[in-house]
Amino acid sequence: MPTAEPPDPIHCDALVIGAGPVGLFQVFQLGLQGITAQVVDALPVPGGQCIELYADKPIYDIPAVQVCTGRELVDRLLTQIKPFAPTFNLGQTVTTLAPIEGGGFDVLTSKGMRFICRSVIIAGGVGAFAPRALKVDGIDRHLGRQLLYQTPAAADLAGRQVLVLGGDEVAVATAIQLAQAQDDRPARITLMHRRATLNAEPHTLARFQSLQGSGALQFEVGQVLSIEEDNSPERRLVAVQMIGDDNTQRRLPTDAVLVLLGLSPKLGPIALWGLAMERRQLQVDPVHFETSTPGIYAVGDVISYPGKKKLILCGFHEATLAAFAVAARLRSGPPQPLLYTTTSALLHQRLGVLTPPRSSTVS
Amino acid sequence: MPTAEPPDPIHCDALVIGAGPVGLFQVFQLGLQGITAQVVDALPVPGGQCIELYADKPIYDIPAVQVCTGRELVDRLLTQIKPFAPTFNLGQTVTTLAPIEGGGFDVLTSKGMRFICRSVIIAGGVGAFAPRALKVDGIDRHLGRQLLYQTPAAADLAGRQVLVLGGDEVAVATAIQLAQAQDDRPARITLMHRRATLNAEPHTLARFQSLQGSGALQFEVGQVLSIEEDNSPERRLVAVQMIGDDNTQRRLPTDAVLVLLGLSPKLGPIALWGLAMERRQLQVDPVHFETSTPGIYAVGDVISYPGKKKLILCGFHEATLAAFAVAARLRSGPPQPLLYTTTSALLHQRLGVLTPPRSSTVS
Repeated sequence: MPTAEPPDPIHCDALVIGAGPVGLFQVFQLGLQGITAQVVDALPVPGGQCIELYADKPIYDIPAVQVCTGRELVDRLLTQIKPFAPTFNLGQTVTTLAPIEGGGFDVLTSKGMRFICRSVIIAGGVGAFAPRALKVDGIDRHLGRQLLYQTPAAADLAGRQVLVLGGDEVAVATAIQLAQAQDDRPARITLMHRRATLNAEPHTLARFQSLQGSGALQFEVGQVLSIEEDNSPERRLVAVQMIGDDNTQRRLPTDAVLVLLGLSPKLGPIALWGLAMERRQLQVDPVHFETSTPGIYAVGDVISYPGKKKLILCGFHEATLAAFAVAARLRSGPPQPLLYTTTSALLHQRLGVLTPPRSSTVS
Repeated sequence: MPTAEPPDPIHCDALVIGAGPVGLFQVFQLGLQGITAQVVDALPVPGGQCIELYADKPIYDIPAVQVCTGRELVDRLLTQIKPFAPTFNLGQTVTTLAPIEGGGFDVLTSKGMRFICRSVIIAGGVGAFAPRALKVDGIDRHLGRQLLYQTPAAADLAGRQVLVLGGDEVAVATAIQLAQAQDDRPARITLMHRRATLNAEPHTLARFQSLQGSGALQFEVGQVLSIEEDNSPERRLVAVQMIGDDNTQRRLPTDAVLVLLGLSPKLGPIALWGLAMERRQLQVDPVHFETSTPGIYAVGDVISYPGKKKLILCGFHEATLAAFAVAARLRSGPPQPLLYTTTSALLHQRLGVLTPPRSSTVS
């Protein structure tokens, strides 16, 4: 009987969990300390909340940046950390984190990657972003076949009665895309949102309304109450019972539910690693930003300490002090003097920039 | 006998002492809290160390700013705080700071300005920048007549034997300027620096060497050991005794000494305000950044708390938490929820920006 081979582990000095702005600046500060980081994030791209929640919205309180969008902030940080060449392991969460005898941690991710790392820095923000789940009795057993959280290939929905749940740009644009398909069109496309207001760009809404007017798709205001299955051995999903905003119930023939209710952050496995928490925040000391487990640090919105404010700029400070603590842990010996990026040739070397010449000459 | 009238006081909620990068961001964070600040700084322009020590040198560790010079950082911060219209009171130091019965502080500056303020935030950096003093026995009694720390009007030096002390751009350029004067030329101009290396731009050095070659000015490598005075009732300064780098002593006829040894930071009166200090750092609690005197806060390089790193980005965090504490002190009532510049209409109003419209439409 074959046994599952554990994946070849990646060895590293520092694993950063979370690629939001604070996780990215954590990479920078580790880099200044001469430490290269591996980064894991649930989202398919770096940026965390900045990308997921306010990619195009303005931020005014990043010091010395009058205004930038979430996306611009992330782009700026990605540029800044380029010299330190972190490895991004995206679209996966850390599932288990176990201390290794003699020091360090054995880390597994949801994609089956494995890291043996000397230190871990949790920059977990509000948690790992995962699709917001549809909560209806009995529907979960259709997951992956008739209950979908990602838009499948068009062929998979051809001829089916598709119900798209959601009201944001992604949901509206997906309904439009399905309705405009040349081949493999679903038999019927219904977008259902709990409110009459759709949160999408004007040109997207205009297109949606035009397709709605021509009957290429339907719009329902309401919520799914229950599901109806047939009597086949597979008990196939054949309809949903919905309740409209007029409080009337209706049956909607449906054999594919595409749930696009947005992403919601989940603290997830972090809560299971035995780290001291209070009100779902990791407790750290505000000097080293170390959790209750030595060698595991935490920074940003996931932590709590006296006076903590959930601001990005505070996370930058926390990541900086955590990097000093990680470096002190990894190298034994006397404390290192504080180096400045303006003057230190060592930091210039790490940053890959030339040390500027002094403007002096012997007369 | 006339008595000195105390100046009309300026009343304010918050007085920020220090216009370096952290003092400037303090103004920003106070502004977000709805508090307008008065700012006092010893230098004639905002910027502190960023302007005085590394105006043209690169800084790499401001989060989301890949690289900027000290001057660029200050310009960016000045742009960012513009909505909050702080008043800068420059070229002066705070000399006395006295608590007022019933709350608040009575503050006097070296230029005779007076502030009655409800809170004080010391963003004092390494101290107030003041000209580095020449330390030679007996010379101080010539201050303002034959001992000068600022270049006077050309007429004041006409026909005199001027000794310029210093080796940086300012000192070298001043010697050149004196030597090139059309009228009111000094009789003799000597630049003295303790080392043979002058720290000035190449074109400045070239001009200096050309004037030196033509005899329009002299360059001495060495230091002033003592002064020589005449027997007149005024005991006028007539010469200095110097020691060269060859260890030989020489007499240099001199009746005006212009000291341009650069600026050096002095903690100055801050040390006299009765605030708890340790190793010349103000002790604060890292939650409110309040000193041992309630209502007086301190942020940036002037403070010490467990784990403190003297980095600009840490000062930004400190200024932010101090602003929350100042605001909580000034307004009574329940704690305010944390507002975000991305979403808060109140903060948008304070910043003078439009709250971005939501991209939604009723369908």
